[in-house]
Amino acid sequence: MASGSHAPVPLLKDELDIVIPTIRNLDFLEMWRPFFQPYHLIIVQDGDPSKTIRVPEGFDYELYNRNDINRMLGPKASCISFKDSACRCFGYMVSKKKYIYTIDDDCFVAKDPSGKDINALEQHIKNLLSPSTPFFFNTLYDPYRVGADFVRGYPFSLREGVPTAVSHGLWLNIPDYDAPTQLVKPLERNTRYVDAILTIPKGTLFPMCGMNLAFDRELIGPAMYFGLMGDGQPIGRYDDMWAGWCTKVITDHLGLGVKTGLPYIWHSKASNPFVNLKKEYNGIFWQEELIPFFQSVSLPKEATTVQKCYLELAKQVRAKLGKVDGYFNKLADSMVTWIEAWDELNPPKGGAPTANGPPKK
Amino acid sequence: MASGSHAPVPLLKDELDIVIPTIRNLDFLEMWRPFFQPYHLIIVQDGDPSKTIRVPEGFDYELYNRNDINRMLGPKASCISFKDSACRCFGYMVSKKKYIYTIDDDCFVAKDPSGKDINALEQHIKNLLSPSTPFFFNTLYDPYRVGADFVRGYPFSLREGVPTAVSHGLWLNIPDYDAPTQLVKPLERNTRYVDAILTIPKGTLFPMCGMNLAFDRELIGPAMYFGLMGDGQPIGRYDDMWAGWCTKVITDHLGLGVKTGLPYIWHSKASNPFVNLKKEYNGIFWQEELIPFFQSVSLPKEATTVQKCYLELAKQVRAKLGKVDGYFNKLADSMVTWIEAWDELNPPKGGAPTANGPPKK
Repeated sequence: MASGSHAPVPLLKDELDIVIPTIRNLDFLEMWRPFFQPYHLIIVQDGDPSKTIRVPEGFDYELYNRNDINRMLGPKASCISFKDSACRCFGYMVSKKKYIYTIDDDCFVAKDPSGKDINALEQHIKNLLSPSTPFFFNTLYDPYRVGADFVRGYPFSLREGVPTAVSHGLWLNIPDYDAPTQLVKPLERNTRYVDAILTIPKGTLFPMCGMNLAFDRELIGPAMYFGLMGDGQPIGRYDDMWAGWCTKVITDHLGLGVKTGLPYIWHSKASNPFVNLKKEYNGIFWQEELIPFFQSVSLPKEATTVQKCYLELAKQVRAKLGKVDGYFNKLADSMVTWIEAWDELNPPKGGAPTANGPPKK
Repeated sequence: MASGSHAPVPLLKDELDIVIPTIRNLDFLEMWRPFFQPYHLIIVQDGDPSKTIRVPEGFDYELYNRNDINRMLGPKASCISFKDSACRCFGYMVSKKKYIYTIDDDCFVAKDPSGKDINALEQHIKNLLSPSTPFFFNTLYDPYRVGADFVRGYPFSLREGVPTAVSHGLWLNIPDYDAPTQLVKPLERNTRYVDAILTIPKGTLFPMCGMNLAFDRELIGPAMYFGLMGDGQPIGRYDDMWAGWCTKVITDHLGLGVKTGLPYIWHSKASNPFVNLKKEYNGIFWQEELIPFFQSVSLPKEATTVQKCYLELAKQVRAKLGKVDGYFNKLADSMVTWIEAWDELNPPKGGAPTANGPPKK
């Protein structure tokens, strides 16, 4: 079944953008040069737009600061977070490519157990180009990898798999812990290299981290909204979580797959747990309500596109989470604004009329 | 959260039986001597009862052949398969211990990547004694292992986990493939050591292999019926699959966990794919009906014990799978017989009255 796994991995250099949110000079790109230089970068500058971000020579990039976002989206710019790496989702919106890889600027090239540099992007591409298996668990993990397959008892009708929408990579060194765990285990480092990729089963939620993440924009892009975080908001560090929960519910509904596992990047620096606690504490309460909400969300049959699913989800967020905190009404509004902005920047191909009539000029 | 993980693993030598189904001399035990010798073995002799099975010196064991099974169970012996390793479940029934480890006689000690012999049993005990997390996926795998924890975004209310009922270990060398895959990939060997244990999420079925399997008899024992296979039956090699599907549905209903991953054993010998195909072909068709059946099974609230769940499942097997093939009516009968036999050999502790009145004499 592992057809094509032996074939060289396509670079997809004209089909993939790398999105990086940052507040500092991008010296970390030096280490990634052998792997990233063929690609176009979309840099979303967080915070003070008057600051100049230095990008190492030889990289092909476009850079957006807050002024650019305001200019391009007008009043709809309100849906893009400020002073929070959640602003990265603006990069997903302006990209014209099929695939996105997003990485944090404190993430470096990790080594595999043999000591070889890991080309994280290549592994993400492999993950995205091979199917997922959300309907039944394969005990030898990804059945499409070289040297693996479906085990005895795996229904043959499910072996074709489904298209993979998301590839969630992991981190060696500093694990992605919340502030309380950081405080309790300040010295814990992730040293375990787990040589596996697996599909997160249908109906199962997971904590999606935005540090090392790739996805198929055409399949799931409009669901990758990183919410309202940071400046002026009562919450931070839940941007990727929010996107992950929305995305998983929608991929489950649309019959798409989410993979997690390889590739690893080297996460160099633990953020300050005290600062994190301040950002997170509302989220720590709220997630106790959010998880049951997302576990019980049901999307109607008519929701056949990511946009329709997402607008339906916004409606349910308002109806069911608005009572948890007024913030969720504001978030629901922003979810709608995000989709409007997405559709404005990404009109249907060939100018075909949409469900709402012909595309706006 | 990884409390106690640094503590030495208890041997549980008075609380665990090793169950081995076999048709040959148990020379394979020599390799396992350092790990198995402290334990009691229950050997279930498959096939011709007049054959003598040689057990290496120094092991503490009891051995049951078909005559013993017939004598002990009388007419209920019909539920125990003949000429098929499915007969191993008789060993689960006669054990008086809390835990069972079962292994095939062509499974040897594997080595970890550092070249050290893997004590599979010790890892199974670790798995069974630490909780499972079926309600939400942890991207760093088992959060209770040393060096790991729950990642950011994992709800705190779910971090206590649930009791682990099953620990499903894997195999290096010969992978557990079905006959068609064996035929297509005769030379494929599993060489990938994946250093992970994970909980199979609630609502997700998996193919449970009986080669290297441990479970908590008190929590889930009566669901570990390996069905009617082999001599006189239209199917083989689905014994462990059947047990796995029933078990998973019941652990999900009762809020128990199933883990898979480490430990590995070394599976030495591929069985004959032509013989396997003959045993499997009905199963290959039937599993296409079985999986949707098990995916949609719903057990009533009143089913609060494994026995009650299992009898309810037997009822649904008869009602919904009887039309797939008459075999499933016979299987449903055997499921009921199995529970009757289990309860006879395992009367409620302290002679407390059961739901059906006082225990029979």
